[in-house]
Amino acid sequence: MLDSSQQKGQSLAQQVASKIEELIKDQQYKVGDKLPNEFELASELNVGRGTIREAIKLLAARNVVMIQRGKGTFVSENPGLTEDPLGLSFITDKKKLSHDLMDVRMMIEPEIAKLAAENATYDEVKEMEKICLEIEELINNNENHEEKDIQLHSVIAKSSKNLVVPNLIPIIQTAISLFISLTNRSLREETIETHRQIVNAIKNKEGEAAKTAMKRHLGYNKDKLNI
Amino acid sequence: MLDSSQQKGQSLAQQVASKIEELIKDQQYKVGDKLPNEFELASELNVGRGTIREAIKLLAARNVVMIQRGKGTFVSENPGLTEDPLGLSFITDKKKLSHDLMDVRMMIEPEIAKLAAENATYDEVKEMEKICLEIEELINNNENHEEKDIQLHSVIAKSSKNLVVPNLIPIIQTAISLFISLTNRSLREETIETHRQIVNAIKNKEGEAAKTAMKRHLGYNKDKLNI
Repeated sequence: MLDSSQQKGQSLAQQVASKIEELIKDQQYKVGDKLPNEFELASELNVGRGTIREAIKLLAARNVVMIQRGKGTFVSENPGLTEDPLGLSFITDKKKLSHDLMDVRMMIEPEIAKLAAENATYDEVKEMEKICLEIEELINNNENHEEKDIQLHSVIAKSSKNLVVPNLIPIIQTAISLFISLTNRSLREETIETHRQIVNAIKNKEGEAAKTAMKRHLGYNKDKLNI
Repeated sequence: MLDSSQQKGQSLAQQVASKIEELIKDQQYKVGDKLPNEFELASELNVGRGTIREAIKLLAARNVVMIQRGKGTFVSENPGLTEDPLGLSFITDKKKLSHDLMDVRMMIEPEIAKLAAENATYDEVKEMEKICLEIEELINNNENHEEKDIQLHSVIAKSSKNLVVPNLIPIIQTAISLFISLTNRSLREETIETHRQIVNAIKNKEGEAAKTAMKRHLGYNKDKLNI
């Protein structure tokens, strides 16, 4: 089985991991599918069960598959996308990282908002409005809205219908977490107001207005970082 | 050693991998450093050598460390950044992926060129000029310039001095490879001309001109995809 794909310096487990990865890419196993069990994979790929087990662990480390104990191994929802895809957690200068992440968000999120205004479905707009209300309630109760904030930006990204943009979400997520920890969660009014403006523009299919509102939203955050 | 960081459902190897990751993040081991050998790590973290070996493999799968046979294990240059950080190779619709990647490049690369014009050093500009000439020679000889093309965009990204932007390079790399394979390497003249414009604007520290030249460069590519 492992003839032409064998590469020098790769362990057998790595080779088997690449083989399983190819099967997923060739759509033999699709997102959410349960992989065959160790016995079946071992027999199909003509290697020992120990090797299959090791290969599966390597794939799980990169979130290609998810191991659910007692249930089996499944193809991840976003295969190959980890929590920290760019390794940003290894950057030690958190202050500069936070500024630079904000610059990157400024490059992409206004354009994402514009695409969302052009492509969001009715249901997606409903979801955005629901999350907006939840964020307002959390802010008004002085509770942490980080998770919901990330959720709102994620729904906007998904509704852009661009295939790449939703995969940038873990990066935006890092930015939001860092930002909230550095600024100690101020900007209550501005967050409520600009979130509403973004979602309204998307609802009204006004691309340029959505882009401008997102720029204003990020601009407040950026200013805050510079204080 | 593994008291508070122990998480339910994580294997011992995963816990040890997290522990080593923390040591790298806390700067006990820095980029390029050789990690202590298996014996030393096993003794330091109070686990068996087999567990250390498994943990190291998990870290290598995410490019946190690199295993060099016979030499040892080293902290990677860009720890946590893999060849395909967003898992784009798992997206099956390559035609739409290529379009959507071009839209993302359009969002970020003109701004990157502007930052490069503001922050590139003399040596970085010299390097860009050298790569430009190399690309021109390859194109004129009808040879593949993909690798050099990626190198040019990488130097521009690094010279922006933004910490996040260089980590987006593997994504741009995927875009360039896909693009060249889908368009069968046309756009010879336009590539030579617009690359020169970008590098000249960066050399002259003209931010807006660099941004415009990058937009034109990507615009040619985008048009080509739509034919």
